[in-house]
Amino acid sequence: MLQETQSEAPLYLRIATTFTRQVASGALRPGDRVPSLRRLSRQHRVSMSTALQAYLWLENRGYLEARPQSGFYVRTPFSRLIPEPRFEAGHTTPPTPGNDAILSEIIATADDSASISFGAGAASSELFPNQRLNVILRSIIRRQPLHSSHYVFPPGAEPLRRQIARRATEAGCSLPPSEITITCGALEAINLALRAVARPGTVVAVESPTYFGVLGTAASLGMKVVEIPTHPQQGMDLAELDRAIRRHNVKACIAMTNCQNPLGYALSDGYKKALVDLAESHNLALIEDEVYGDLVFQGPRPRSLKSFDRKGIVLLCSSFSKTISPGLRVGWVAAGQYRAQVERLKLLTTVATAGLPQAVVAEFLQSGGYDRHLKRLRMTLAGQIDAVRQAIAKYLPEGTRISRPAGGYMLWVELPGHIDAVKLYRAALAEHISILPGPIFSATGRFRNCIRINCGHAWSEAHDRALLTLGRLCDHQREFKA
Amino acid sequence: MLQETQSEAPLYLRIATTFTRQVASGALRPGDRVPSLRRLSRQHRVSMSTALQAYLWLENRGYLEARPQSGFYVRTPFSRLIPEPRFEAGHTTPPTPGNDAILSEIIATADDSASISFGAGAASSELFPNQRLNVILRSIIRRQPLHSSHYVFPPGAEPLRRQIARRATEAGCSLPPSEITITCGALEAINLALRAVARPGTVVAVESPTYFGVLGTAASLGMKVVEIPTHPQQGMDLAELDRAIRRHNVKACIAMTNCQNPLGYALSDGYKKALVDLAESHNLALIEDEVYGDLVFQGPRPRSLKSFDRKGIVLLCSSFSKTISPGLRVGWVAAGQYRAQVERLKLLTTVATAGLPQAVVAEFLQSGGYDRHLKRLRMTLAGQIDAVRQAIAKYLPEGTRISRPAGGYMLWVELPGHIDAVKLYRAALAEHISILPGPIFSATGRFRNCIRINCGHAWSEAHDRALLTLGRLCDHQREFKA
Repeated sequence: MLQETQSEAPLYLRIATTFTRQVASGALRPGDRVPSLRRLSRQHRVSMSTALQAYLWLENRGYLEARPQSGFYVRTPFSRLIPEPRFEAGHTTPPTPGNDAILSEIIATADDSASISFGAGAASSELFPNQRLNVILRSIIRRQPLHSSHYVFPPGAEPLRRQIARRATEAGCSLPPSEITITCGALEAINLALRAVARPGTVVAVESPTYFGVLGTAASLGMKVVEIPTHPQQGMDLAELDRAIRRHNVKACIAMTNCQNPLGYALSDGYKKALVDLAESHNLALIEDEVYGDLVFQGPRPRSLKSFDRKGIVLLCSSFSKTISPGLRVGWVAAGQYRAQVERLKLLTTVATAGLPQAVVAEFLQSGGYDRHLKRLRMTLAGQIDAVRQAIAKYLPEGTRISRPAGGYMLWVELPGHIDAVKLYRAALAEHISILPGPIFSATGRFRNCIRINCGHAWSEAHDRALLTLGRLCDHQREFKA
Repeated sequence: MLQETQSEAPLYLRIATTFTRQVASGALRPGDRVPSLRRLSRQHRVSMSTALQAYLWLENRGYLEARPQSGFYVRTPFSRLIPEPRFEAGHTTPPTPGNDAILSEIIATADDSASISFGAGAASSELFPNQRLNVILRSIIRRQPLHSSHYVFPPGAEPLRRQIARRATEAGCSLPPSEITITCGALEAINLALRAVARPGTVVAVESPTYFGVLGTAASLGMKVVEIPTHPQQGMDLAELDRAIRRHNVKACIAMTNCQNPLGYALSDGYKKALVDLAESHNLALIEDEVYGDLVFQGPRPRSLKSFDRKGIVLLCSSFSKTISPGLRVGWVAAGQYRAQVERLKLLTTVATAGLPQAVVAEFLQSGGYDRHLKRLRMTLAGQIDAVRQAIAKYLPEGTRISRPAGGYMLWVELPGHIDAVKLYRAALAEHISILPGPIFSATGRFRNCIRINCGHAWSEAHDRALLTLGRLCDHQREFKA
């Protein structure tokens, strides 16, 4: 298990992925015949059984169909047949103080650890480079025995800030290490950013749906939230955002433009530039949450909003909790013109981030193993998402719509209109299955028939059964209604 | 250096300490003759040179005087001759939004690490049980290789909460582990506690002087602060607190009754009970900061406010940053009736505390080495405080008053009235000496002629020279004035 995290993806998976890419690019189209098994094994210099494994994987996911006596043919993948959640156009929701009774209930019951966790945004332990991190840990303990005997005051450990700055170039950012403040995870970064740009009573614009942590944080700080209608693939409606800024005197906006949580979309450079321009013209602070930004499945790493920022109004927040280790609690914020306030707030809330975790992450990034690890992680997550999508399409009621995430490991599922996601959440928990109900992703209780499904865990029969159960529970709701 | 942290205190220091205790208890009085060196060496079965070392240490600190041809006699220690800071009786200061320009300046310059640090509340690396912690760390990495691959969601690691609950009995508290929430240090605990009991605009009562982190936190959360006149040995004036609660509709009070920062006092059980009673009668939440509570120099561990709490209104906040390791960032809060809100806020701000540090602290506490370590740490700190007091008495201007801390490692120094502590802070920084000026310990800029001196670093000639320099800088201010 540990060893796997260091090796490359299995051969069959690599072969299968080249096919999915060709399908995605249009190089292979539905109806095309693919090479025979014998030819495939020769082409890739692999055994016949590996070639078969690759085709079976593709067949299972609906990319290929086997025609008896004829061979394998490309077909429209199942996942493409499932429609995506709908966009309900409409006007901005007025600011509200935060409707969080359901979130409180979920937090209170989070301890009864469900055996199948489609809930919290956590991935399986095996997905992280644990063995490499432990080698580095041991080495630091040996070389720097006093590693934890002092505070690493804000802005945080310089070697880590240098590595973060170096990698930020991949997202199109030119960040000096001095602009970066190390935090206890991305949510602390967002907390500090919010507190730096807004006061109690300030109106903050958010996507809808948006990550519930952002809503809870804003409410607990006495800030008001205005939800901007958000398209499942095209992001916040910028015309509505513009109107909301004028109408509600919005001072800040929290946005995820790469692998949005929960919708999964990644937006174009054009959109990002337009959003930054809009923010600049209104003197709006943009808090960018990029926690899944390194997990885009295909193509080059997309640019961050921050890369279009000329005036220092974007506060880029991220962490290594989704890619290297959730338990080390290392995040960061590049806060532009708000840097000094953020550093000060960091000192006044958690004083410093633990030193040893900072050192471990810095050395891991420096050692050059991060890109290889990411490549494998992305492929694994894409496969897991695919498996969950297939099962949802199979088991959940007709009329269900599923998001098509560009990366990360969340699926957003719109169930038929009569289904109450909060009731479904409670019924599922009684069966030891956790999911997150849609209303916690909205300050106004929208998305009553939506759920978020975490695909961060290795697909198994137990997961398949759990989704079957979820389908049955949906059917119960239909019966009660009838 | 590492080895030292595991052994007991040096022999001469142990002998000397038995003398200081006898002086403190009155068993030895000024004028008493103490045993000859030969007799002392026989009594304690140590060499003559160790006996001499003990007497020289005592003589240096003014406990003994050597009379030629006659022997050593007890004298009134120098430190007793230095008067303590004065208590300015008076009325409660009205609530203010927080005057923190100077604090911002100090944070901004904190990077220019002074060669002599009397400033930040950090102790020397060597004072912590680093070697033991590293042995435990290596063992955890070996036994639990997936230690950091998951979130340790609130309330935090169960083994650590159990150890904290077990130790809390020494402070008179009977805490179930389920009441404890693990945090990123004590300041996060205080932040969460404040946010759980108060909203923006709420008035919070604080000691005066009080720890500046509390003032900055309250101000950044939009809370108002009312300063209660505080006696350097007897704590907050409870009659004034009572009046302030009625006058300003105070909803919470932050108090340190054991080793207050910066004054150093530890209050009686009677006082603590009276404070809790007062709070109960007004339905006031009491946020107790006990971060130095394990560092009381003499007698048994004093009780915490929480031990008098019957209604769950005390939120006891502490950490291991002053005793085991500042860099691990492990703190906790036992929040009584506010437990659920605190857990929720923890999840919404830093999600979880890093897992590996929690495991290390839990195993260190469980291993039983903590008490031995504390004993040695207290003795070392008492010695360092003593050394700094002597030097201050020697070098700082006539009329200087110094606190007599019951524990911890801070001294509060009241300089003659014409001295401006902020100017002194700036002048000292130019000489690479850091101190903290009094006004940051007040929301209303009081204590303009006071400074806080951190005695957490091993006494050295460089420290002696730094205090000589500080005295010179004080004299300059006098000259400018004349």
